[in-house]
Amino acid sequence: MSLPPNDELTSFFGELCDAAAAMTLPLFRSKLGVINKLDAGFDPVTEADREAERVIRELIEKRYPEHGIIGEEFGRSRPDAALQWIIDPIDGTRAFISGIPVWGTLIGLYENGVPVAGAMDQPFTRERYISVGGEARLSVDGGAGEILTTKSTKNLKDATLMTTSPHLFSEEWEQAYFKVEEEVKLFRYGCDCYSYCLLAAGQVDLVIESGLNVYDIAALIPIVEAAGGMVTDWQGGDASQGGAILACANQDIHKEALALLNG
Amino acid sequence: MSLPPNDELTSFFGELCDAAAAMTLPLFRSKLGVINKLDAGFDPVTEADREAERVIRELIEKRYPEHGIIGEEFGRSRPDAALQWIIDPIDGTRAFISGIPVWGTLIGLYENGVPVAGAMDQPFTRERYISVGGEARLSVDGGAGEILTTKSTKNLKDATLMTTSPHLFSEEWEQAYFKVEEEVKLFRYGCDCYSYCLLAAGQVDLVIESGLNVYDIAALIPIVEAAGGMVTDWQGGDASQGGAILACANQDIHKEALALLNG
Repeated sequence: MSLPPNDELTSFFGELCDAAAAMTLPLFRSKLGVINKLDAGFDPVTEADREAERVIRELIEKRYPEHGIIGEEFGRSRPDAALQWIIDPIDGTRAFISGIPVWGTLIGLYENGVPVAGAMDQPFTRERYISVGGEARLSVDGGAGEILTTKSTKNLKDATLMTTSPHLFSEEWEQAYFKVEEEVKLFRYGCDCYSYCLLAAGQVDLVIESGLNVYDIAALIPIVEAAGGMVTDWQGGDASQGGAILACANQDIHKEALALLNG
Repeated sequence: MSLPPNDELTSFFGELCDAAAAMTLPLFRSKLGVINKLDAGFDPVTEADREAERVIRELIEKRYPEHGIIGEEFGRSRPDAALQWIIDPIDGTRAFISGIPVWGTLIGLYENGVPVAGAMDQPFTRERYISVGGEARLSVDGGAGEILTTKSTKNLKDATLMTTSPHLFSEEWEQAYFKVEEEVKLFRYGCDCYSYCLLAAGQVDLVIESGLNVYDIAALIPIVEAAGGMVTDWQGGDASQGGAILACANQDIHKEALALLNG
């Protein structure tokens, strides 16, 4: 089993994102109350989550029947395959149900456990981030898009930091996190997977989170790394299985943040 | 001096938003580093802020030369006029400089101190919220758009709360705020003016902030109120000059949140 060629992968990621968007976008900002009157058991985000993963899995099964799949909603298929597709159909469900377009559909591809390609799609803003063959691109509204590069900020005191919400950290971890927050120039809360894409796009300098699952980070590692950034855990080790994540625009920022988190 | 007819106002708000977007959007997500190499003193958000307010003021001066203007960047003109346009060219500058499309151009219209019409424009997501004649609409990608109505959530325990960042409150106020945060079903940080538009659009139930200026809230009051919501200060009084803001989807949520903030 070998990695499909870059062109084929790029085009297939596009197909997967289109198919998922057809499931998620019509349910984004749907009025829960209105829908609930028709069917008391209907939950738009759960429905969107399940349907998006279902169509992604179907397309993968059809195109690459020997590849493995790990999905947030429907678990693992062919766990021994060398190539594994890793899916979070809607990362940022809280943003989704609040109507904020910073959620995304995440699709990563691992080869023998190593993140090699990934896509993040935000269909409301029409942003599609795809990393294939060591090159990450953002297309807005279709087309090949622009090649992404991270920022070259040298010092943490000049950096912009993002995290989804500080209350997601345990107390001990929150204190380590706040050491970094106190040092940076600017911090922002609230963006889930969107933060990592902003990092790859050279808009922010670092993202710190904890408690991530493999499908929360799989697609994002190739996007950030291909743009020149680093994604590790809070000890500087492998982040490919999730956990506590430190994603940085470059080595300088990473070194300084790592020291503060462990200081 | 009388209020222009609704159709004229709606169309003029559109003109103002288009003109502002032409100044802001090209500078959104511009790479600071790249631009700074050309001109060390150039700051994209300051430039976008000033240029957007400049074109808005020019259009108002030309169309309604007797109306007053209050702008974040260039202050007051004709402060005694009965009709006052109130402008925040970029509300959410921190979001703007971080590349997150939850900032907005805010344009409000007061008649004898009473908020009567307003617009919020987010050109990257192509969302335009306009309230005229007691009707608030959201258009995405042009067109007349859909009429907005707030949620009918009855109890705070089922509500979604938004605030830009809890660290923006003073310590005493933060404690009052946290009483509400602890009660709600879901809370989200990070959205500035965008939160109030989500409230009007029936996506979230309440927004709590403090320290707002008149130009931070002027455009948003008519949008939320026309959709069926309420905007007051933390004591339930007039919010039209800014300060500490409690914006709610309906009276039930407002009553409960007000009691907690003052309990």
